[in-house]
This record gives sequence, structure tokens and C-alpha cells, in this order.
Amino acid sequence: MHDGRVTSPSTDRPRRRGRRPAGEDTRTLLLDAARAVFSESGYDGATVRGIAGRAGVDAAMVNHWFGSKENLFAQAILQLPFDPEELVSTLLTGPAEQLGERIVRKFLTLWDATGGGVFTALVRSVTSHEQATQIMRELFLKRLFGRIQERAVDDRPQLRATLCASQMIGMGMIRYVVKFEPFASADIDTLVPAIAPTLQRYLTGDIGPPTE
Amino acid sequence: MHDGRVTSPSTDRPRRRGRRPAGEDTRTLLLDAARAVFSESGYDGATVRGIAGRAGVDAAMVNHWFGSKENLFAQAILQLPFDPEELVSTLLTGPAEQLGERIVRKFLTLWDATGGGVFTALVRSVTSHEQATQIMRELFLKRLFGRIQERAVDDRPQLRATLCASQMIGMGMIRYVVKFEPFASADIDTLVPAIAPTLQRYLTGDIGPPTE
Repeated sequence: MHDGRVTSPSTDRPRRRGRRPAGEDTRTLLLDAARAVFSESGYDGATVRGIAGRAGVDAAMVNHWFGSKENLFAQAILQLPFDPEELVSTLLTGPAEQLGERIVRKFLTLWDATGGGVFTALVRSVTSHEQATQIMRELFLKRLFGRIQERAVDDRPQLRATLCASQMIGMGMIRYVVKFEPFASADIDTLVPAIAPTLQRYLTGDIGPPTE
Repeated sequence: MHDGRVTSPSTDRPRRRGRRPAGEDTRTLLLDAARAVFSESGYDGATVRGIAGRAGVDAAMVNHWFGSKENLFAQAILQLPFDPEELVSTLLTGPAEQLGERIVRKFLTLWDATGGGVFTALVRSVTSHEQATQIMRELFLKRLFGRIQERAVDDRPQLRATLCASQMIGMGMIRYVVKFEPFASADIDTLVPAIAPTLQRYLTGDIGPPTE
């Protein structure tokens, strides 16, 4: 699909070609080491020191390149193109009643930017590795929707977070994996007003009475 | 699985261990032949006669065992435990404003009955075979939500059908594939009032203005 938008100079990131500088090599070594260590030891068992040791670099390089173990996790295993903490801050900026809209728009924009490749990789890893599922649970539920929930209503926050996850993962499945039309090619501006009220209701609205 | 049915003496089955009755053999032969023919020729290209020929049985056996090409499709490729036409009839029985509730309850009940195995098989086949995706599109969008749409509002029916599909597939992913709690173990009576309004709005409510 041709996209006629003009790229603003401020978003025009430089693309390096050819040989990577040494710093990028360190980053790649750390990502490879992280995948190995997380697979062997799980999230809790893995240490920044252990991953750096496996990569043969100083532990300070983890903080330099990834900021945190969690972010290294996100990039190595889930191949997320963003820092979860930064994303949460962005989403929490603005009125609570527009949370749903910001979430849907932000994720569609992030995922569209890779042609859905990141989302598809996520689903593949989730359907084949229990470890990836555990990490995704940690990141999406605790870090992302868990923190967003702090700003929302105080009623079954974990159920609400998983309801949000159900619509978000379904959105990605239809748009990038099974590619049902017209959803797969629809403008973000068509999808946001359709889907945002669902997220908003799951976060702050009526989801029915608690049952025992 | 043990089957407690009492065999009538007139059946006079041979006592070879593990042998299935002839009828079940025919059914299995047809399912195998259907998988082969649908993979080679696609849904439109496959004929009942061709599938029966491949199985080495009379074409009347397809109608006897499956009722229709579509239902054979559903059972052979998607391993759906229901007849799409029958499901549509069930869902369309009752008030239009409770369509969302009936859909969510019916699918959760059907999928829960197999421990989510059917849904997981569906996702596996969809992420690995383009053919399965095409068939799912045909069944869910045209036959199921397409027909349900005939009872709903006359505004972008295909977009509405895919919005429904996004919530339904996401519901299945969270409950059966990634198993996020408390969603994965929640009572159907907890999930239905939470999710049904989403389906209802996608079918008959406000999904935002059309954009060009």
C-alpha cells in the first residue's frame, strides 16, 4: 500500500549502511547473550552481570545500551522497538478519558512502522516458547497495563488489564497475521475511533458485576 | 477416549483389536482427502466429487457425513466442532441487541469444551498456512459475521465483521494460548458482561465516522 505522507525532518532518522561501528557490535553481542541467558535461566534467574559476562563486555554496557534488564529483555526476546517505561510515560501523559485512544493509536503506529513484523515475531515466539509468554505477561500486564491501571478505576485491575490485552492482541492478529480486510489496510484514523472506546471501557468503564 | 456405547449384536463387528467400523473409516478417508484437495485446489477449486474420488468413496458419502462442502472444510481444515450454518441460526435467534452476548457466550462455551485445543489448533494453522487463513476468512467473515451483519446496521459491514473478529481472536489468544490470568480461568459469566458490549457496539453501535 502506497503511503503518500511526507516525512517530517524531525522524524527522519538517519540510516547507517555498511559496517557497523564497534558500539553496535557490543549491542548485538549483548542481545545474543541475553537471548541465551534468558532462555536458560528465565527472567528472574538472569543477571545483568551474567549476560555481560556471556557477551564478554563490561556490565556497564548493559545500562549504556539498554538502560535496564527489563528493556534488554524487551528488545532481545520480544524484539519490541520501544522502552516499556518510556511508553508508559507517554501513554499516561494526557487526560484519563483519552487513555484508550492513546493506547490504540500508539500501538498501531509502532507496529505499522515495522509492517507488522514485530507483532508477528511476538505471536510466533508466544505460540512456541513458554518463556516468551511469561515475559510478555510480565511486560504487558505488570509494567504496561499494570501501571496504566494505577491511573484508572480501582475495580479488578488485573481482569481489566487482560481484557485490554485481548483486544490489543486481537487487533494485531487481524491486521498483521491473518490480514482480514478492510481491517488490515484501514487507516489508523478509521481504527482508532472504532477500537479506542473498547480499551477505554476495559480500563475505566462498566465491565459487569464481579462474580464468585 | 473410552466410548461406552453398547454395540448391537446385528452389527457383528470383526474382533480385530482397534479396528473401526466401516462408516468411521469412510469419514476419516474423506477428512484426509479433503485436506489434500483443499490444500491443492483451494476452497473454490475443490469439488465434492473430487474429494470423494480421492477418498475412493461415493460422492453421496460427503453429504451423508458432513452435509456440505463447507462443513467438511470446517471440520477437515479448521477442525471446528460445529456446523457454521447451524451456529449462525443459533446466534440469530433472539433480540438483535443481545447478539454480542450470544456470540461471546457461544464461542467461549464451544472453545472451553475442548480446553481451548480447537482454538489453539486454529491459530497454529493460521500462522503457518496461508490456505487456512483464506478458509478462516471465508468462514468467519462471509458465512458467520457476514450473515450476522445482515441483521445489524447497514454501515461498513465488512469493517464491523473484522472488528468483531479482532476481539474474538484476541479473547481466544488470551484465554487459551498465552493464558493470562485472571482472564484464562475466569468464569464465562464474568467474561460475557465484560466483552459482549464490545461485540454489540462493533455490530450495531457507533464505530466512528467513515474516513477516506
